[in-house]
Amino acid sequence: MKRSLVSKLQIGESAKIMGWVQSIRSLGGITFVLVRERTGFVQCVFKGSPRISRESVVEIVGRVHQEPRAPGQVEIKGEKIRIVSEAAQPLSVETGKSAKLSLPQLIESRPLSLRQEKQQAIFKIKAELVWAFREFMRSQGFVEIHSTKLTSGGLEGGSEVFPVKYFGKTAWLAQSPQFYKQMMVGVYERVFEVGKVYRAEPHATTRHLAEYVGLDYEIGFIESVEEVMEMEEKMLKFVFGHLKTHCPELKLFEAKVPEIETIPRITFAKAKEMIRGKCPVKESGLTPEMERAICQEVEKEYGSELVFITKYPLGERPFYTMPSKEEGCSESFELLYKGLEITTGSQRIHQYEELKKAIVEAGMKLEGFKGYLMCFKYGMPPHGGVGIGTERIIKELLGLGSVEEASLIPRTKQRFHH
Amino acid sequence: MKRSLVSKLQIGESAKIMGWVQSIRSLGGITFVLVRERTGFVQCVFKGSPRISRESVVEIVGRVHQEPRAPGQVEIKGEKIRIVSEAAQPLSVETGKSAKLSLPQLIESRPLSLRQEKQQAIFKIKAELVWAFREFMRSQGFVEIHSTKLTSGGLEGGSEVFPVKYFGKTAWLAQSPQFYKQMMVGVYERVFEVGKVYRAEPHATTRHLAEYVGLDYEIGFIESVEEVMEMEEKMLKFVFGHLKTHCPELKLFEAKVPEIETIPRITFAKAKEMIRGKCPVKESGLTPEMERAICQEVEKEYGSELVFITKYPLGERPFYTMPSKEEGCSESFELLYKGLEITTGSQRIHQYEELKKAIVEAGMKLEGFKGYLMCFKYGMPPHGGVGIGTERIIKELLGLGSVEEASLIPRTKQRFHH
Repeated sequence: MKRSLVSKLQIGESAKIMGWVQSIRSLGGITFVLVRERTGFVQCVFKGSPRISRESVVEIVGRVHQEPRAPGQVEIKGEKIRIVSEAAQPLSVETGKSAKLSLPQLIESRPLSLRQEKQQAIFKIKAELVWAFREFMRSQGFVEIHSTKLTSGGLEGGSEVFPVKYFGKTAWLAQSPQFYKQMMVGVYERVFEVGKVYRAEPHATTRHLAEYVGLDYEIGFIESVEEVMEMEEKMLKFVFGHLKTHCPELKLFEAKVPEIETIPRITFAKAKEMIRGKCPVKESGLTPEMERAICQEVEKEYGSELVFITKYPLGERPFYTMPSKEEGCSESFELLYKGLEITTGSQRIHQYEELKKAIVEAGMKLEGFKGYLMCFKYGMPPHGGVGIGTERIIKELLGLGSVEEASLIPRTKQRFHH
Repeated sequence: MKRSLVSKLQIGESAKIMGWVQSIRSLGGITFVLVRERTGFVQCVFKGSPRISRESVVEIVGRVHQEPRAPGQVEIKGEKIRIVSEAAQPLSVETGKSAKLSLPQLIESRPLSLRQEKQQAIFKIKAELVWAFREFMRSQGFVEIHSTKLTSGGLEGGSEVFPVKYFGKTAWLAQSPQFYKQMMVGVYERVFEVGKVYRAEPHATTRHLAEYVGLDYEIGFIESVEEVMEMEEKMLKFVFGHLKTHCPELKLFEAKVPEIETIPRITFAKAKEMIRGKCPVKESGLTPEMERAICQEVEKEYGSELVFITKYPLGERPFYTMPSKEEGCSESFELLYKGLEITTGSQRIHQYEELKKAIVEAGMKLEGFKGYLMCFKYGMPPHGGVGIGTERIIKELLGLGSVEEASLIPRTKQRFHH
């Protein structure tokens, strides 16, 4: 007898169900066993009390009949039950629908906590988000790349990099695919990558992970940074539209998907003015508090949960960022979503001599950038791009407490499990 | 004036072309400039000799007219030319169609060598291969996951792992997503991952990379390992079919795409007998020489470039491999393609007690597998899966000399550039 999937059960037929025991309930000599598998839940009814435990893998044979009170309106009158793999009891965390698990519980019992309906939903939605990102980029003529994560420098500069012992040398885990996607602009003009990004972030916050899934794209032959933002606007419109139509799981979080038409673009200087007096304002960059305050004001003024902050201070940006005509400003931006930065992007310097000057002015040595500079030595078009944090979008979309909840096996300084 | 893409040029119109100078040819006071951009090549004709160099980024304005002798049968009568970014001369490697570059040249001048038509083609085909893999897995109800590459052990055992300094502790780069995809079988039943795989491979060969793009899937509720192979058969049929219809670039390599109906399945014992006397035979595993000899024999006998070698010796397999009824054999297999192993797969042990016994028998400590064992403690279905090396498929499909040619920035013990 072949396995029947819950989503394909036919009333009147005999079926063999295989899945996990979600719950067991006894009532007047009858036992209701709720079975969970990849296509849904089904209730199986037995006379007496079969010896069975929650989360065990079972095989149940019985007849399918209508039962308006059961999930999916069908029920299986159980004839035979076989325990395929018995789950130890008690469970280290609850897997029921209403179980409220703390972050340490979620992470420490990951193999079990992920079986909870809501936790499963997070990573299904994440998979759909990543799928939609790629589909959109492909539709716009972008080629997918897979760049190395073992670099000879940290790429973005700064000290927050992880060293790797590499055959007697030291390599560094890539903090972004920045240099490689720029290199590939010189090859394909338009490239994107979905890949791991590593940041040796020493602070415990709800917005930082030591390892996250980065969505990156880079566009050649742009006329200005505005095109980089336009592309992100169109991409997010597609991605959020896809999630809305393909993720019924969103309702478990009462998640409201943003309806994107145009995302307001506000200069850094203007954003600061909007919130002056409403929270402490740092002149040279955005604090998390400022990001939240800006989003509140933008929501009021423009009715948008998303906002581009443009003309970001040049001094806060990596050396490859294109300076603006306006003194001290750069052709770079951040995208904030419900008070959280989910993207940084910019136009990049594309002229060889200008780039060399920028490296030297940043106090770094040209010798460290030999491979990178080779792209520019042999002709690069004007270009720009973005890096997006997948877990941050998921956090804000679903209203999670921390980005850690949106990572299968989150890595932080504080937590390193399994 | 907006940029015109080469693929959309209309005869009679005035166009602004932007791209790289592929070649410059002067003939009787006329200069032919071949421009390359993401949609193709176009020939631009100028009177006199514009000051211009190969690989420079240029903007050319002129009128489009018919020219049967030009690529794409159109030509642009150049009126204006602007150098956007000048390329230094001489080029460190040739980028012309007929340039033959050695592996060190390809790698050392990666930003430039990738601009060559054939090199570009390799990574376009790779992108399509990965896309097709994901599309197929999605169509079969698999959920995409992104597991951590920072592990507390090497996962697969053995010494070929890269240590990472992780906030004062040591982490190890994942040698496979094995444990995590098994964990996720306990959640979604069917999962796949496209992700980086790290092997501190000390030998210089044409088949090993220290970092490669792994294609992994894992299936729950299988009845036997045969289902794991069936899935790969169907997947490869889809993937190769997609490449055939979507990659005109294949003709640059005169690549013959395999027509997959069923892939022969031959036991390890039988495969050894097939080649006895034809090459030195190691009793307990397959050497590269044996793999090539087996493929030759299979090609003769079955007319197939691919072959599954089943019932692989248990002693050669990781501890989690399901033993066969046959003494010393396992429910695991390799898939060979034109003499190269491109996949290892198996059914896995799914019973908690049996798995603990296998860990102890392999001489390892249970404490090291706490997170992994938690999956099995709480009920796991019978399952199995595969790990596939993307660069190996590309190498064999395109007839490349080494897997390094199929990696954007290849990492080996010997080569660590850029």
